[in-house]
Amino acid sequence: MRLRNKPWAEEFINEHQDVILPNPEQHKGNWAAVFGNDHPIHIEVGTGKGQFVLGMALQNPDINYIGIELYDSVIVCALERIVEADKPANLRLLKVNGAKLQEYFATGDVSRVYLNFSDPWPKTRHAKRRLTHEGFLAIYEDVLIEQGEIHFKTDNRGLFEYSLMSMNAYGMALNYVSLDLHVNMPEDNVMTEYEEKFSAKGQPIYRLECQFK
Amino acid sequence: MRLRNKPWAEEFINEHQDVILPNPEQHKGNWAAVFGNDHPIHIEVGTGKGQFVLGMALQNPDINYIGIELYDSVIVCALERIVEADKPANLRLLKVNGAKLQEYFATGDVSRVYLNFSDPWPKTRHAKRRLTHEGFLAIYEDVLIEQGEIHFKTDNRGLFEYSLMSMNAYGMALNYVSLDLHVNMPEDNVMTEYEEKFSAKGQPIYRLECQFK
Repeated sequence: MRLRNKPWAEEFINEHQDVILPNPEQHKGNWAAVFGNDHPIHIEVGTGKGQFVLGMALQNPDINYIGIELYDSVIVCALERIVEADKPANLRLLKVNGAKLQEYFATGDVSRVYLNFSDPWPKTRHAKRRLTHEGFLAIYEDVLIEQGEIHFKTDNRGLFEYSLMSMNAYGMALNYVSLDLHVNMPEDNVMTEYEEKFSAKGQPIYRLECQFK
Repeated sequence: MRLRNKPWAEEFINEHQDVILPNPEQHKGNWAAVFGNDHPIHIEVGTGKGQFVLGMALQNPDINYIGIELYDSVIVCALERIVEADKPANLRLLKVNGAKLQEYFATGDVSRVYLNFSDPWPKTRHAKRRLTHEGFLAIYEDVLIEQGEIHFKTDNRGLFEYSLMSMNAYGMALNYVSLDLHVNMPEDNVMTEYEEKFSAKGQPIYRLECQFK
């Protein structure tokens, strides 16, 4: 089922509008109505094939998760996983651009942002596209609660170095830094697809938690 | 000559009081008189066997260097190197405790602090002894010029993780972070003894530059 070209993708997405919400801007400021409760909402920007956000939703039923992914060909894989897992009530997907979070979330709608194995955009002229660039940090700050947190994992050394400096320059508190996550793996660590692949090769996984002041 | 017990160490140190200054507190606020010029002064706290501070002094004749090391058995190795290198005019050693820098330096005496492969003190109850603990940062800030910098290298992952958080929490700017220095080795990098040993084993060397605001 994991095909590069998925002519059935659009149809499959339309069949599961209870998972991939079709008009997310309508829920801005009122996400409790979507989930039927006022549990905290954690979003993953760039959710890819969804292993992480699904694992987190199953592990933490009292937190609501929203995976954000722009590309049909990828989000449909996440949707398949979620359908196979019987659509956990605390999980939704948005097929939208992470740069436009403010169209879908009011200030305080989001309690935590996860970034996992984001595109490193290694060329300096593409720095603005990195999901830890100050332009994105300002967006996350705007949709987060006061003192909201970002939790970030990557195998990409350059992106992690950049992100430490970017978050520090933005005035965020670095609450946790690991330069080799799997040496002392936290018991509740949910691995992404990339994380499994790269850590199996012996590459270090970098992780941080930071917080707006 | 690199003996563990050096009964001749005290005598050797006394013979070279032009390198290991015997009464450093006398020079507080007046280090230009020691060096015969007003070039910036960079200090290395925990200078060990002196390879780094000597290499830096030879590479940068317009900067004055002071290596600080408490232990006779180690500083005598640094002294040997320096004597063998004909005592560069821009280099001195202090056989003092790094926790007492304020006895030897007035505010603004120091333009940069180097920390290289400092003791990691891995146990949490020893955190205060780490040279990047907030207690030490306050001392460096007190002897440094405005917006003075700390340049820090280590192979120790735990100490580097801690130091990133400690410097961030202190409100310092992280201007540079490398999580594998030798991948893109800066041309002017001067290696310490530990750095040669650990990088030869393939271990990453971590490095950062941070600045007081």
